[in-house]
Amino acid sequence: MTDKRLLIVSGTHGNEINPIWAVDKFRKSINLECKDRNLEFILGNPNAYEKGLRYIDVDLNRSFNVEKTKFNENLYEISRAELLLENFGINSPNPCHIAIDLHTTTSSMGTSIVMYGRREKDFCLAAVLQNKFGLPIYLHEKDHNQTGFLVEAWPSGLVIEIGPVAQNHYEPEIVDRFIVILNFLRDLMEDFKISKINLPDEVTVFVHQYSIDYPRDKDSKIKALIHPQRINQDWHLIKEGAPLFKDMDGENILYEGRVSTYPVFIGEAAYREKKIAMSFTNKEIIQCSEKWIEIFCN
Amino acid sequence: MTDKRLLIVSGTHGNEINPIWAVDKFRKSINLECKDRNLEFILGNPNAYEKGLRYIDVDLNRSFNVEKTKFNENLYEISRAELLLENFGINSPNPCHIAIDLHTTTSSMGTSIVMYGRREKDFCLAAVLQNKFGLPIYLHEKDHNQTGFLVEAWPSGLVIEIGPVAQNHYEPEIVDRFIVILNFLRDLMEDFKISKINLPDEVTVFVHQYSIDYPRDKDSKIKALIHPQRINQDWHLIKEGAPLFKDMDGENILYEGRVSTYPVFIGEAAYREKKIAMSFTNKEIIQCSEKWIEIFCN
Repeated sequence: MTDKRLLIVSGTHGNEINPIWAVDKFRKSINLECKDRNLEFILGNPNAYEKGLRYIDVDLNRSFNVEKTKFNENLYEISRAELLLENFGINSPNPCHIAIDLHTTTSSMGTSIVMYGRREKDFCLAAVLQNKFGLPIYLHEKDHNQTGFLVEAWPSGLVIEIGPVAQNHYEPEIVDRFIVILNFLRDLMEDFKISKINLPDEVTVFVHQYSIDYPRDKDSKIKALIHPQRINQDWHLIKEGAPLFKDMDGENILYEGRVSTYPVFIGEAAYREKKIAMSFTNKEIIQCSEKWIEIFCN
Repeated sequence: MTDKRLLIVSGTHGNEINPIWAVDKFRKSINLECKDRNLEFILGNPNAYEKGLRYIDVDLNRSFNVEKTKFNENLYEISRAELLLENFGINSPNPCHIAIDLHTTTSSMGTSIVMYGRREKDFCLAAVLQNKFGLPIYLHEKDHNQTGFLVEAWPSGLVIEIGPVAQNHYEPEIVDRFIVILNFLRDLMEDFKISKINLPDEVTVFVHQYSIDYPRDKDSKIKALIHPQRINQDWHLIKEGAPLFKDMDGENILYEGRVSTYPVFIGEAAYREKKIAMSFTNKEIIQCSEKWIEIFCN
């Protein structure tokens, strides 16, 4: 294939600090060997990182489809999204073809992949990663309330999402997990060049259906927490009647969907402001196609 | 004893949300029985809570000895400290005699007590709590860099510190631990009235010695993380030569103190900005005195 350049983004959310450390450590390790011209690195939101915040004005990872207007031109993240595209976008002088955006979550997602929509290039990458490491894949689509994700602004791209880990809290074990992925991706780019890619027969994805908020009172105050039976149970199937929340009086609020579902991002701290207590997914098995490799490489 | 009024403060740090939930749940449970006139409750930093931040301008829990001047009068937390004292301070029309300030930490402190200085009333309370629940006590003193703690502004007061839990992340199990303490304290106030208090013979405290920062490079950037052997090892004795940090090249930075020590608040997320990676303590056993009860009650 023609040389594909890979953009590694860490700190898109400034309080997710383990990926930033992992990238620094990874860069230090590869610089010892040789400088890799096909890798670019950028700290997504340096000002938010400096302050230990997720973002300064608005969520950078929802800002990549926002047209700059006189109403938003002073928002830091809107300018930052523009700057990233100007420097590393596919139409920039220094184009990157694939964006890998590294995130952490306070939910028990393990090491996981988030895909946005059904781009074949993304399926190709995700399938190879799942085949190698067994990672679960959350396929985010059909959610008009949540758009403008960073990786969507590149021809191909995935989020690597690892948790649970607290915001602003370093965990060497989480750092190490990112480094394993980074090393693999670097080698993978070489493997693509020499057509040394083996796709599995199929890839399993957890397809986003809808999100639910915490139960709230008339003043919009949260009135029930994630049920103890749901804590740390991301990716686990639940059926109608499963407890979702428990209120102050000990009453359970149950899952009333008729279709069994796999909840993810259960109780993610940063999603409270987005009024998301968890998201429901369906499991789907997709046949891999050799064409994906061809499309990925061209 | 004369009626002692107890002030329960939650959300002194706005991103420590489990105590806020615990207090709401506790109040709901006691309101069902009767209204307790000897308990007052206040959300310490409502604006920071609203925004999911530790604080707005400055750390409220370092603001209780700060004189209001024209340079700081516009800082939200300085005004907030003043307001708390005007409403619940010992010289207010509605005086509280004891302040219990509920906090969480991202460190593995378990359920623990923080004392500020060696006030006999505080020893009395802390000894009873340790005797009941076996809680470790961190005695904070001799640190001129860290002053102005909330509970110091009342004649008696303790911090209840529970972790690990992520900031802005609800954990029902953490909430329950706070409620156990709140129920016990409420009953304890009644027991004091009828002199039904039994002190243990002695109380064990971990006395603050000094704090250390992360190793940093010349640009003040952190260059080594908490060593995996120290993660989740708060309260555990270490000796000279024990690894404290591990840098990007895998080199260990060792504890060089000649005196063995018990590190606490290891890697606490909120202390990075204070340049504290962990604090070292010495264990000290203090004989309890029956006088403490007398002093507490008068």
